[in-house]
Amino acid sequence: MHHTLIIVGGGPAGLTAGLYAARARMDHLLIEKGAEGGQVLLTDWIDNYPGFPEGISGFELAERMTAQAKRFELNSMFGNVVSMDLSAPLKRLELDNGDSLSCNALIICTGARPRALGVPGEKEFVGKGVSYCATCDAPFYRNLHVAVVGGGNTAVQEAGHLTKFADKVTVIHRRDELRATKIVQEKAFANKKIDFIWNSTVTGIEGKDGVEQLRLLDTSGKESTLNVEGIFVLIGVLPNNEMLPLTDLKADEGGFIPTDCETRTAIPGVMAAGDIRSKEVRQVVNAAGEGATAVLAAENYLTNLS
Amino acid sequence: MHHTLIIVGGGPAGLTAGLYAARARMDHLLIEKGAEGGQVLLTDWIDNYPGFPEGISGFELAERMTAQAKRFELNSMFGNVVSMDLSAPLKRLELDNGDSLSCNALIICTGARPRALGVPGEKEFVGKGVSYCATCDAPFYRNLHVAVVGGGNTAVQEAGHLTKFADKVTVIHRRDELRATKIVQEKAFANKKIDFIWNSTVTGIEGKDGVEQLRLLDTSGKESTLNVEGIFVLIGVLPNNEMLPLTDLKADEGGFIPTDCETRTAIPGVMAAGDIRSKEVRQVVNAAGEGATAVLAAENYLTNLS
Repeated sequence: MHHTLIIVGGGPAGLTAGLYAARARMDHLLIEKGAEGGQVLLTDWIDNYPGFPEGISGFELAERMTAQAKRFELNSMFGNVVSMDLSAPLKRLELDNGDSLSCNALIICTGARPRALGVPGEKEFVGKGVSYCATCDAPFYRNLHVAVVGGGNTAVQEAGHLTKFADKVTVIHRRDELRATKIVQEKAFANKKIDFIWNSTVTGIEGKDGVEQLRLLDTSGKESTLNVEGIFVLIGVLPNNEMLPLTDLKADEGGFIPTDCETRTAIPGVMAAGDIRSKEVRQVVNAAGEGATAVLAAENYLTNLS
Repeated sequence: MHHTLIIVGGGPAGLTAGLYAARARMDHLLIEKGAEGGQVLLTDWIDNYPGFPEGISGFELAERMTAQAKRFELNSMFGNVVSMDLSAPLKRLELDNGDSLSCNALIICTGARPRALGVPGEKEFVGKGVSYCATCDAPFYRNLHVAVVGGGNTAVQEAGHLTKFADKVTVIHRRDELRATKIVQEKAFANKKIDFIWNSTVTGIEGKDGVEQLRLLDTSGKESTLNVEGIFVLIGVLPNNEMLPLTDLKADEGGFIPTDCETRTAIPGVMAAGDIRSKEVRQVVNAAGEGATAVLAAENYLTNLS
């Protein structure tokens, strides 16, 4: 099957691209692997997507974005893209069921996933004390004690951010010094609400209805527990890029896709929007914004194609 | 008065920046000239802001964004910034009442306005047949006859876009040839639903509850009328930049502010988000997305400041 435009991924970036493509009456197809919504489905409550004064559940926001795109006759299918050949103007996509698709313009919205600890209890308590985004969830932890796992810039900065809400923030790091830049470290060390547990990893997350305690293991082999109401796992995000031709797309060190400000990648006719982009800020609202920008970039590309 | 961060402008970009700054508990101030909401207040109905399946009025969206930011203790005031001195790390803003404000980081969200025809009937029928955005409003004109005023790329491309909905699109241009690039022109000339009225300007817009007819004047001095149900005025947008130090900000030819993809301008600590940015796509959702990005860029700047 051929379409003028194919959008891969149905999170906020992909759904917004789908909305714009459908409204522009482009011959389009959106391919989503699991359920429409992507990572937002994992997010219990989103307080910072503009337009919802009381916040909205990730599930409902995804449902509303999907309904909106479908109102304008979004053409979508479930499918798992396993590889792409983007070396010719006619771009080719292979699905895991053996089907192949082609398009003239492509918008990559495959997203990213937080790097997880991979310990017992982690999955069960996502949205109930386990969070991967301090910007999103910090205000839920007012006057509580939370842990931050990680030692990089994001982890240490976010620990500081969390102290504006939480009473106490314990940074747990597997080494004996932080990886964050000096100035970020200094601020954290000067902050009386932050303490540190060095040379330690989290081996389990426990609780009843929500997180209550962490199991820790230090490098000498000693086990201990720490009582906290929340744990922020800030050890990086991983791009969902397994199906992408990373060399042709000039992927960055972390495997994310560089674009210009109009979402154009290194390959003409291929745009990338949302968390898969090489960028500093990964939020629902800027993913959505990039989805809109990408469709208009695709339209411009197609217009100039002849 | 001094604040760590000042945001100038209360449209979708500014309100989203305000939401993010308030949630991050930064010492901030949002200054809005008129009513919170900016240009979206002019937009009768917005169908393409993701999350509202049935669309939402510009007024309600602005109200909801404002309520959301206020829930997190947005600090805002009404004020008219008339000049800025951004030459030192401590940035200074002057208001029309003589007050002066200072800040360490600044986010410029002053927006843009469509260039208007300035003819009788135009203001009265905004949202009732007069539109400045085909991407936004095209679907409202299904099976109707609409006029497009302009001869540039946007006007001619959007005329083509409108034919996906409207029965007939009449492009009215004041010259005898289009300014749009050749390929865009060729597509328009080949489109049977598009016709052209050359060497003519619109001198008035008339109707009862909505647009019914246009008054035209051609270069020979002859007057005529044209019956249409809608008129898209696509003769450019103007940046709201009167208060900005354009040379320091390296404003582009049109007076818009160039930034990198993280919204940083040429001046350290000064970000620009939304329609005032030099960019190709001006939509509510990407303005909002840039507002979020700008606050995180401001946070990074402030962290590294010492």
